[in-house]
Amino acid sequence: MPLATLLTDFGTADGYVAEMKGVLLTGAPGAQLVDISHDIPAQDVEFARLSFARYWRRFPVGTVHLVVVDPDVGTARKALAIESDGRYAVGPDNGVLSPAMLHPGARAVVLDVPPAAAPTFHGRDVFAPAAVRLLQREALETLGTPCSDVALLRTREAQRRPDGGQDGVVLAADRFGNLITNLTARGEGTVEVAGKRVRLSRTYADVTEGELLALVGSHGLIEVAVRGGNAARALGVGRGTPVTLRRDGGAA
Amino acid sequence: MPLATLLTDFGTADGYVAEMKGVLLTGAPGAQLVDISHDIPAQDVEFARLSFARYWRRFPVGTVHLVVVDPDVGTARKALAIESDGRYAVGPDNGVLSPAMLHPGARAVVLDVPPAAAPTFHGRDVFAPAAVRLLQREALETLGTPCSDVALLRTREAQRRPDGGQDGVVLAADRFGNLITNLTARGEGTVEVAGKRVRLSRTYADVTEGELLALVGSHGLIEVAVRGGNAARALGVGRGTPVTLRRDGGAA
Amino acid sequence: MPLATLLTDFGTADGYVAEMKGVLLTGAPGAQLVDISHDIPAQDVEFARLSFARYWRRFPVGTVHLVVVDPDVGTARKALAIESDGRYAVGPDNGVLSPAMLHPGARAVVLDVPPAAAPTFHGRDVFAPAAVRLLQREALETLGTPCSDVALLRTREAQRRPDGGQDGVVLAADRFGNLITNLTARGEGTVEVAGKRVRLSRTYADVTEGELLALVGSHGLIEVAVRGGNAARALGVGRGTPVTLRRDGGAA
Repeated sequence: MPLATLLTDFGTADGYVAEMKGVLLTGAPGAQLVDISHDIPAQDVEFARLSFARYWRRFPVGTVHLVVVDPDVGTARKALAIESDGRYAVGPDNGVLSPAMLHPGARAVVLDVPPAAAPTFHGRDVFAPAAVRLLQREALETLGTPCSDVALLRTREAQRRPDGGQDGVVLAADRFGNLITNLTARGEGTVEVAGKRVRLSRTYADVTEGELLALVGSHGLIEVAVRGGNAARALGVGRGTPVTLRRDGGAA
Repeated sequence: MPLATLLTDFGTADGYVAEMKGVLLTGAPGAQLVDISHDIPAQDVEFARLSFARYWRRFPVGTVHLVVVDPDVGTARKALAIESDGRYAVGPDNGVLSPAMLHPGARAVVLDVPPAAAPTFHGRDVFAPAAVRLLQREALETLGTPCSDVALLRTREAQRRPDGGQDGVVLAADRFGNLITNLTARGEGTVEVAGKRVRLSRTYADVTEGELLALVGSHGLIEVAVRGGNAARALGVGRGTPVTLRRDGGAA
Repeated sequence: MPLATLLTDFGTADGYVAEMKGVLLTGAPGAQLVDISHDIPAQDVEFARLSFARYWRRFPVGTVHLVVVDPDVGTARKALAIESDGRYAVGPDNGVLSPAMLHPGARAVVLDVPPAAAPTFHGRDVFAPAAVRLLQREALETLGTPCSDVALLRTREAQRRPDGGQDGVVLAADRFGNLITNLTARGEGTVEVAGKRVRLSRTYADVTEGELLALVGSHGLIEVAVRGGNAARALGVGRGTPVTLRRDGGAA
């Protein structure tokens, strides 16, 4: 069964996502549509990129991922369709598709923008129609012109410290206020953030309710959390805040 | 595959929408359910009507649209099912279904309200059961009594000015803060809103980041936006704010 | 067609729900996924339990309900799969599944937690994989060890008063600000809440716009509402506020 997912910053109430779904189901009747989210903060390409990185390979081979967070719609930015590891993705060339594009063997084509496309709504008039063609099993190359200079965004890597630790940043705060960092260390150590020092734990059970902890999250990155609470709020920090991992015995 | 869409102001957390989905899938197993939105502002029939206008004809012929924004549930207001341009819609007779009802050839029937229906929740006990019957391809006329005096709401039309321009209003602000007006002009001109004057552009690319612009939106209506920003917030305006389109050379 | 529903407090933007959906559709291709809600207030097991109570039996026999509101993920709390009245439910052993578990004939098994499961994300690594096996029609007993001491939460019952009335509480305020109480009386009487006295009505039509009323809601419990308004806000009350039902002629 053809399967498309949708990630946008449109919200749902205004009916824009509905229009896209109508185009998809008119063009590819019976296709399964899966909402990822429409609550990405408005025009926040980086937020969408991190979300997309989480899920794109979790879906079956053949899935068509629509990703429409597109602050530069109507400008000269390219419209892309890509194939990567057997999945497809369609969206603007602003780096949001990087997680799939950076995977070995990824290929991209630039989509034509039909003259009648609304310059404010490529989601409906460019990306959804391209997704329809992929849902109908048209080959990627029939959709546009091969493209090798795709805009790429990479997650900032933490810097190794002389003491064996790392200097990094908070990449995002999730809905629970957990601070996702780019620190990748495993094992023991102490995380410093906003003037607080907190030892690495294995699980929430290692601390008591309301206590701060650091642990390796579900994607292998260190997270700072408050058990039963909200670390972002408690510490007053968010995306971009510096964090440091110190190895045991490392200088304070 | 039978296809139903859902638009409500219920939110999702309380479980009301879930109850409706359970009724739909119990009555019409295998039907495809598509969420439009459950985030319509509470009891805002006008907001829902504008959203419904966007999407109802984008879906395939045979689609059953559920629209349950129903501040007068439990009063004498009628419950309706309609057929229009090959699509169906089910919802309260408060004008929310007008976009489909005003389409040439539309027909409506008044649904019976079973005595056991909860007077606070026709979505579950009246509209979802009617949708099930339509999903099972029962004819509209078998669902109720034909009705010709349906409540109709129309989008206010802009007034033509002597100088060739128009006087209109902001119909809605979308999630991005774009101001959707009822001005329909194409080509050149200047839009006035909240004491600001802004020239019509073709696309966001015509202005720089943070600058105000006006352009023809994806439904042919003039929108006022801030590139990379939020016009509703920047101008402090919203639904009902007067807007004027002046033709070039029109008096200030 | 295999059918799974999802209720979480994850929000959608961070991509956690998306990861779960990917696991479900990779393991059970073609399964129908139905979003219940991802907007449960963070870690609010009681809120989720009341929502789950509404919908679990509305869905067809064979439905697999995923319920992941799990503040104690990573602790020793058990992971459960249950079968009740022909439906299945998968989630943490914190009482959230009680509505299904308290139904006559319900059975539960404790799921194994694979060593590689992320201690912060059993939704993806424990519950979704268990749901996949149920979607593939594996028998409940093959998923884990039978369990008879499941955590159970019950809705607090109102206390009968000497005058024939009841003393109860507000269980929840819904999105409209309607106050759902645990008062169960039918017929006539007066509800007291926050110092206000309001007669039981049958429907919103019995009062005028902006007026307070009490009525029997769609689940047989008494609700306090403001027609066209928000009772929770108007009265400044919410979950846990005492309410009293007085029979006519009962002492003030």
